Amino acid sequence: MSGPVVFVSDLGLRDEFVGVCHLVIARIAPDVHVVDLSHGVPPHDIQAGAMMLANGMAHAGPYAVGLGIVDPGVGTARRAIVVRTAAGPWLVGPDNGLLSLAWAALGGITGAVEVDPAAVGSTKVSAVFHGRDLFAPAAAHVAAGMPLEKLGSPVEPSQLQALELEDAEAEPGRIHGAVVDVDRFGNIRLSARPSDLERAGFRVGTMVEVATTATSIRARRIVAYSDVKPGEYGMLVDAWDWVSIIRYEASAAAGMGVTRGDPVWIALAG
Amino acid sequence: MSGPVVFVSDLGLRDEFVGVCHLVIARIAPDVHVVDLSHGVPPHDIQAGAMMLANGMAHAGPYAVGLGIVDPGVGTARRAIVVRTAAGPWLVGPDNGLLSLAWAALGGITGAVEVDPAAVGSTKVSAVFHGRDLFAPAAAHVAAGMPLEKLGSPVEPSQLQALELEDAEAEPGRIHGAVVDVDRFGNIRLSARPSDLERAGFRVGTMVEVATTATSIRARRIVAYSDVKPGEYGMLVDAWDWVSIIRYEASAAAGMGVTRGDPVWIALAG
Amino acid sequence: MSGPVVFVSDLGLRDEFVGVCHLVIARIAPDVHVVDLSHGVPPHDIQAGAMMLANGMAHAGPYAVGLGIVDPGVGTARRAIVVRTAAGPWLVGPDNGLLSLAWAALGGITGAVEVDPAAVGSTKVSAVFHGRDLFAPAAAHVAAGMPLEKLGSPVEPSQLQALELEDAEAEPGRIHGAVVDVDRFGNIRLSARPSDLERAGFRVGTMVEVATTATSIRARRIVAYSDVKPGEYGMLVDAWDWVSIIRYEASAAAGMGVTRGDPVWIALAG
Repeated sequence: MSGPVVFVSDLGLRDEFVGVCHLVIARIAPDVHVVDLSHGVPPHDIQAGAMMLANGMAHAGPYAVGLGIVDPGVGTARRAIVVRTAAGPWLVGPDNGLLSLAWAALGGITGAVEVDPAAVGSTKVSAVFHGRDLFAPAAAHVAAGMPLEKLGSPVEPSQLQALELEDAEAEPGRIHGAVVDVDRFGNIRLSARPSDLERAGFRVGTMVEVATTATSIRARRIVAYSDVKPGEYGMLVDAWDWVSIIRYEASAAAGMGVTRGDPVWIALAG
Repeated sequence: MSGPVVFVSDLGLRDEFVGVCHLVIARIAPDVHVVDLSHGVPPHDIQAGAMMLANGMAHAGPYAVGLGIVDPGVGTARRAIVVRTAAGPWLVGPDNGLLSLAWAALGGITGAVEVDPAAVGSTKVSAVFHGRDLFAPAAAHVAAGMPLEKLGSPVEPSQLQALELEDAEAEPGRIHGAVVDVDRFGNIRLSARPSDLERAGFRVGTMVEVATTATSIRARRIVAYSDVKPGEYGMLVDAWDWVSIIRYEASAAAGMGVTRGDPVWIALAG
Repeated sequence: MSGPVVFVSDLGLRDEFVGVCHLVIARIAPDVHVVDLSHGVPPHDIQAGAMMLANGMAHAGPYAVGLGIVDPGVGTARRAIVVRTAAGPWLVGPDNGLLSLAWAALGGITGAVEVDPAAVGSTKVSAVFHGRDLFAPAAAHVAAGMPLEKLGSPVEPSQLQALELEDAEAEPGRIHGAVVDVDRFGNIRLSARPSDLERAGFRVGTMVEVATTATSIRARRIVAYSDVKPGEYGMLVDAWDWVSIIRYEASAAAGMGVTRGDPVWIALAG
């Protein structure tokens, strides 16, 4: 028996979608522990879901089963897949790139199948909710120990959809990247990593100018959120090693008016 | 030992209401699994809660205990009830119709009691939060195996409040119904069923005009959400067999400006 | 083995923060039951979090472990603490007052330590997310039975930060207090208690005038929410014995335009 099932989706908590997936899992594998990683992925935002799943799986242990449901293509020919990773965890979800950042972070794929509905007990699969009808049953059966070859027919890993995150560009004194997420506190996560800060020469204490197409603010590179005064901007490395623009006790995203995908330029402040 | 407890409410997740109900259940029946179906029922919306509970119980198995808390009449003379259904599951909540769509879907009532607070260990019942003081304890005792006759005094099933959902009217070329729900994606669930589509002759591929008192749009009958282009409207059968108006990767409800209860007319497009 | 872990935070459910804390706990103490009390504490609102934690712990039983994460000072010199209370439960979180209303309600402190990261297996502690790196591991180890003296070095309880809630002032015919919270239904919780109602002589049925700096409404003292007509205001004692201004089936806070901290004057209506 493996576990836990690590469940991420864009289904939200307003409706009964997530609860029903829990019920389906509980009937197949009543002893499996399901952890709700987040159901607040913006609707249909495969990349945001993929990042969350990768972040979560890093803390889930080698027996975990990632279950991802961000599935705008439900009911079409896109595959339902189960993937086994080199680091141990399994991943279950649609073949639309949602699982790909997690498998990359978990050492790559050691086996993959397209789910056979009959194998996971799904005699009736709707065209509108594979979360309930296919992915939740598959995750439950994986967690209950069903081997890969019984779950469906093998798929060549190279045939699976994978996301490519565009890296930031860094040179001395400059970073050019993009907004990859805005969290509940309004912190702005950029497509930049600590190595980019190093390449740019932005050490702790350095003052930079952070510009979008619409606005520009000054921020000091800091270590902790409270290293700036309330309302001031700071630049720090967040809990998953992304460069973030923050505003202590305020929303940096609201202050700068950015949303995901916006390009951002960071330069040494004059 | 039965289970799981399937918990639906309008209590929201902002406050500690739901968490406290979990704690109360855990003290009485520590081994019972509680699944949060949804706590996003619009405040005081008994019908929306009733539909969610019925949808959820369909996937919960014969030993499940439905716990519903949408209770604008808390502290008044309305009864607190436990109901046993023909299909097996139990239902616990206020006698205001909230449980009635579930018991109808579960084959009807085979026994019902008005909860005796003392029987479920509630020595102090507030006038403001029966979820904590009465319904959660009752659900926990039911899940832990307490027989119906020990939970309180019998009530004649015909005396219990039941909701009547108004059916849509369908004739060849026309359906007249109403909005019964709008989900997190902005999909509009109507009071119409696949049988109404059949009666109207709206087959997959048929183009219809969907009108409210304020607006009118054209939609094609489709099978999967992505059978229309992003932004276009479609009409499909949703995951619980309701006719829905959707907009792929956009909110149909925002586009049409509807809310629950609005009348909707569907006609063959000219 | 103690439990459950009662988890309250301002981390929200949009991101993966809360789910990752669950995963961290599950790896250390897989059999421990974690109850999400609420993650909807307004960002950085230590007082709101402290009240929720105190409310929740009252229902959690003597073996519970309160885990509080509202931590604007993460990465600074503020201590990470574990506290044992006279009533039995343990509390884990930052030393910023968040735990103090709970320990006061649980009979006071019988022992406290500053958490040693190594003791809870945290070899790498970020400056930005002690919830994941320190508090969740500490709560898991406490729930799994680690004794206080192994968790870190003793702290003098009198050295810990404690919140002081300002009491309302009551005299015959008058109460002066403040808004301490607004819940999901728009009910306004005041800093007044049943004893203040008694001192003011506001019995059930009494009509009062409730004034802020901006507006004033009339409300009858009632017992249950539905003791007024929809839209009318009422004043009642809520589920945690706070005086609240409510509007049946409507938001009192929206109607009066108040937010937390606003002063409120209640006087016998003329």
